[in-house]
Amino acid sequence: MTAPAIILSQPQIGENIGATARAMKNFGLTELRLVAPQCRWPNDRAEALAAGAGDILAAAKVYPDMASGLAGIRLVLATTARDRDTLREILTPESAASRLRDAQSNGVSSAILFGGERAGLSNDELSLADAVITIPTAEFSSLNLGQAVLLLGYEWLKSADRTPASRMRKTIAVPALRQELVELFEHLERELDAGGFFFPAAKKEAMARNIRAMILRSHLSDQEVRTIRGMIVALVKNKYRGPAKTT
Amino acid sequence: MTAPAIILSQPQIGENIGATARAMKNFGLTELRLVAPQCRWPNDRAEALAAGAGDILAAAKVYPDMASGLAGIRLVLATTARDRDTLREILTPESAASRLRDAQSNGVSSAILFGGERAGLSNDELSLADAVITIPTAEFSSLNLGQAVLLLGYEWLKSADRTPASRMRKTIAVPALRQELVELFEHLERELDAGGFFFPAAKKEAMARNIRAMILRSHLSDQEVRTIRGMIVALVKNKYRGPAKTT
Repeated sequence: MTAPAIILSQPQIGENIGATARAMKNFGLTELRLVAPQCRWPNDRAEALAAGAGDILAAAKVYPDMASGLAGIRLVLATTARDRDTLREILTPESAASRLRDAQSNGVSSAILFGGERAGLSNDELSLADAVITIPTAEFSSLNLGQAVLLLGYEWLKSADRTPASRMRKTIAVPALRQELVELFEHLERELDAGGFFFPAAKKEAMARNIRAMILRSHLSDQEVRTIRGMIVALVKNKYRGPAKTT
Repeated sequence: MTAPAIILSQPQIGENIGATARAMKNFGLTELRLVAPQCRWPNDRAEALAAGAGDILAAAKVYPDMASGLAGIRLVLATTARDRDTLREILTPESAASRLRDAQSNGVSSAILFGGERAGLSNDELSLADAVITIPTAEFSSLNLGQAVLLLGYEWLKSADRTPASRMRKTIAVPALRQELVELFEHLERELDAGGFFFPAAKKEAMARNIRAMILRSHLSDQEVRTIRGMIVALVKNKYRGPAKTT
């Protein structure tokens, strides 16, 4: 299976969660995750709008933050309407669906992230994504959460009968679990901090996000994440354990 | 111009007409026609849901029946969710969009028909269409009027869209010089060696090659190469300059 999970971050309006479930079911998606919902949960209005997709709502899991919401996920695509500064790959819904199908063919778990109604995904949440998806629109651009899920679900279903382009390519190793990447980021950032890398301090968050984006662009495997962590340990080794070289 | 007109037959719910206008405007469609609306018209709820697409509602024209609603139209495609007995061409939304673009190129006026919420299009109305459009769904199929318009509008825009399937947010105007990368590799490998990373020694060359490949997959810019070199310096900093921690 491994159809993509749909992850809503801080959804505010029950109706939109219901519309999401309905859109999902139309297009063969079943796993819904809610990160820190801002409305009551379970939610009457969500159930009213789900219209036959109540089973998806009933099975939805709730998580306190995005890092835990990504448990078990290896490929993460994030929807965003706005331009962001970070250097990152941008996909159309169609190419995103194709990439998710490739992942499915290789048994790789995946998720699509959608931000809350007011503010969308935070920069921290985006920093956990391999690539972002932007829905092409005319100059007027005003899609709500349910509509965005509908369009992604539609492209997902459409992509089903398409032979994945990547079948011709050499199979890439299984991409790392998101949790392993989060641990790598935290390890690296902790050591960089200790080395005084983040200067000035006010720029720390932006600097860390750029480093995360740079690393995610490599689509690391489990093994490569372990290799980089080994590299960090080796680089800081003398700091903790090695002989002092006093000057 | 001659973008397709959207024609709603006997719409019952003001909200759905508003959602239709909003969906249209997102994807560059502007002409809305209402055939025998079953709700008040103009309609407050429609205006509330239009969310910025009120101009499309204000310009919408009302007709007493489908034959008059098709005034001036030459190519007619009708959406339907159900199997019909009549032998008729069935298009996907994508191929419908392509046919509508062909019409546009030839200056041929066109329209897409959508039936009312309860009964859809009548057989008489379908008999006026050149072909029908069916939206592919999973076994569960429950799309409302606004969602159907959204998906057709999306395909319409896509059929003209030149958005590359994948692009980078910012162009890497200046990919790093190979020499800068070589210096980065040498710097990193020297420090990893000093930290005892390459073990066993016989594997050093293969390990270094894998690390180089991993880094090259990120397609680094000049600036990013400098960032990584700064990271290496920060990580090994205490080794050379920091206080000794004797064990």
